[in-house]
Amino acid sequence: MAVNPPKLTPPLSVPGFRVGTASCGVKSPELKGKRQDVTLIVSDVPCHAAGVFTQNRFRAACVKLAEATLSASATDIRAIVANAGNANAGTGEMERVWSQQLVDAGARAAGVESAKVLSASTGVIGTPFPIERIEAGMHEAAESLDADNWTAAAHAIRTTDTFAKWGSRTVTIDGHTYTLTGIAKGSGMIHPNMATMLAFVATDAPVAAHDLQPMLRRVADRSFNCISVDGDTSTNDTLCLLSSGIGLGHAPLTDSMAFEQALTELCIELAQLIVRDGEGVSKFVTIDVTGAATEEDARTVGHAIATSPLVKTAFAGSDANWGRILSAIGNSGVSIDTDGISLKADGIVMLERGNLHPDYRDEEGMAVFQREEFTLTVDLGMGEASATVWTGDLTHEYITINAEYRT
Amino acid sequence: MAVNPPKLTPPLSVPGFRVGTASCGVKSPELKGKRQDVTLIVSDVPCHAAGVFTQNRFRAACVKLAEATLSASATDIRAIVANAGNANAGTGEMERVWSQQLVDAGARAAGVESAKVLSASTGVIGTPFPIERIEAGMHEAAESLDADNWTAAAHAIRTTDTFAKWGSRTVTIDGHTYTLTGIAKGSGMIHPNMATMLAFVATDAPVAAHDLQPMLRRVADRSFNCISVDGDTSTNDTLCLLSSGIGLGHAPLTDSMAFEQALTELCIELAQLIVRDGEGVSKFVTIDVTGAATEEDARTVGHAIATSPLVKTAFAGSDANWGRILSAIGNSGVSIDTDGISLKADGIVMLERGNLHPDYRDEEGMAVFQREEFTLTVDLGMGEASATVWTGDLTHEYITINAEYRT
Repeated sequence: MAVNPPKLTPPLSVPGFRVGTASCGVKSPELKGKRQDVTLIVSDVPCHAAGVFTQNRFRAACVKLAEATLSASATDIRAIVANAGNANAGTGEMERVWSQQLVDAGARAAGVESAKVLSASTGVIGTPFPIERIEAGMHEAAESLDADNWTAAAHAIRTTDTFAKWGSRTVTIDGHTYTLTGIAKGSGMIHPNMATMLAFVATDAPVAAHDLQPMLRRVADRSFNCISVDGDTSTNDTLCLLSSGIGLGHAPLTDSMAFEQALTELCIELAQLIVRDGEGVSKFVTIDVTGAATEEDARTVGHAIATSPLVKTAFAGSDANWGRILSAIGNSGVSIDTDGISLKADGIVMLERGNLHPDYRDEEGMAVFQREEFTLTVDLGMGEASATVWTGDLTHEYITINAEYRT
Repeated sequence: MAVNPPKLTPPLSVPGFRVGTASCGVKSPELKGKRQDVTLIVSDVPCHAAGVFTQNRFRAACVKLAEATLSASATDIRAIVANAGNANAGTGEMERVWSQQLVDAGARAAGVESAKVLSASTGVIGTPFPIERIEAGMHEAAESLDADNWTAAAHAIRTTDTFAKWGSRTVTIDGHTYTLTGIAKGSGMIHPNMATMLAFVATDAPVAAHDLQPMLRRVADRSFNCISVDGDTSTNDTLCLLSSGIGLGHAPLTDSMAFEQALTELCIELAQLIVRDGEGVSKFVTIDVTGAATEEDARTVGHAIATSPLVKTAFAGSDANWGRILSAIGNSGVSIDTDGISLKADGIVMLERGNLHPDYRDEEGMAVFQREEFTLTVDLGMGEASATVWTGDLTHEYITINAEYRT
């Protein structure tokens, strides 16, 4: 039950990168050959790399290992290896062993050193990691390495996703046209700070090593950290960016702002796809918070609205229940003047400076809330900062997915 | 769909207090005569009083007014007036006027000064407050004032509650036996910091004025602030305590600890009744968090578990999904060592110091999660502090209640 999943145009290949996938039955041996579940992304040259990881204190071993690898050599990464079907989390002492074995298998398959490989796992928590099957799958994935294989990889990293998510951008700087291609997965446990989501972005643009990590953090804060499905954050969330600078050495970009803009647009597009595929989501709601004292305040208020079960069920019920929205804003913890708040839904003014607008009629609000996609605009009247958060509704389908099946 | 609502024994009358109710059709004129919706609690003597109110930044006018009244004269309160059916919130400038009119009406009906009356309103947000009907009802309520009317009051403050909630305790100190009787309402929007709930407690015990407010805060933190239905906090939540000391002047209690203990037990009982009546709740789950560095850490972890949609849907689905519980603990923001955590369900050891217990079998956990009531025990292994949180599950019924009806 995805909300208007767009028909995606094919992803662009990125010079110097090849992608391979295989089906090895990670989740269970019977699934071997039925769905792709391991992915290998290989760069022909060493890449500058950056990563943003889950803020959950339970961080799966693959997250800890990828962080350690990046802090040891963020200028020298050659590959990313990923599997779906098993998160390799919550399995105690074996987690670390299996995580290293996954990296080793990817390194052997790609023909590079283990110290130059990042890994990510997603799927069931608390089930032994089938490392033998995955090692076999990794060799098969290496045989399929191809520059045009991004779509297959977008499929292979899925778990409960109902559609594969990818996107591409190009940006021209100083006469060079660079490509950015990203894939992402995620549909439940989606919340700021990277929720059961994986996203990998590759580019041939030569971004300076010291710029890459802070840039990716900023971009994550305006894309993946601006979405919420259910307010839960997983143990394995990972966003990785590889910048190869192939053909140009690593002479830094003269206009890294233009690159960051393209990266932000791409990540917002991927993040929105995740909301559209949110578990049980039947509506796609954009929450624009303006007039905040700080961007952080704006984002906090947006998330408070996006995570309130009462607001989300009102979305589901097409009920323009502005009282619940006000209450959620009041619960955000942000300092506000309740008499200064204005609220619009797709341009219909509901509240103006704390008062119901005299011309507002409930039927107008209801008509907006019945749409599959609409925008709430909250003006806090406290300053000039703003933020946008994207979310879905809370439906019977969400309960069915999460109460009736083990994920 | 309440979870095992206990058959409550009749509340005890409290010397010096009389209670009256009436039906005036607060929510709509057609309801007049059909359900009681205004309540008046009157003390024969001036009371020491304390209040704990919503932390939502949108605080209804009645909350602001009650706070102002308490800060002006917390040693001299004579009455509480309450209505159900309309929260008198989100209605802009008229809110303040109507709130004062409600207090004035209660004061006239009780024959006391307005400055000695606390008020509370609960119900729909954003609908004009029908002050004329309520004023008429208040006079009718005054005519029914009676020491044995607590049950009627417990009914009259309900909104979506499926049963009325009350409780009594006695405590004997220095040969005097004192009575505490409380009533409460609340079923949705229930979360720490007082969520759409009202609770009023009256006692003839003479608690020193300067003790009362800090005591009520401590008690609230261990009772009403330890429950969660949906993580939402309303604009009107109010807990008020009146201590008359009737017949004893206000000579302070020699053993206020014994009184506080009785008050805590009473408030926990009322708080648990609210969870049992939570919107759509089909299970009553006790979350004991032990081994925390501080009591606040323990409570934060308990709430993180109690508010995770993935944990709550696992409760609903009778799925002993300990991975989701670990993930919720990791999201709590509390500093923990993930290798130190142990987890039990009704005595079945699931995890021991970060590892699945070798003897644990999934069927055992499933058997516990199928119960209508069970206890999760989380040992953080970080210290000696503990806290208990009570919560329910997240069900289809919750979605139905909140998506299909305007509340």
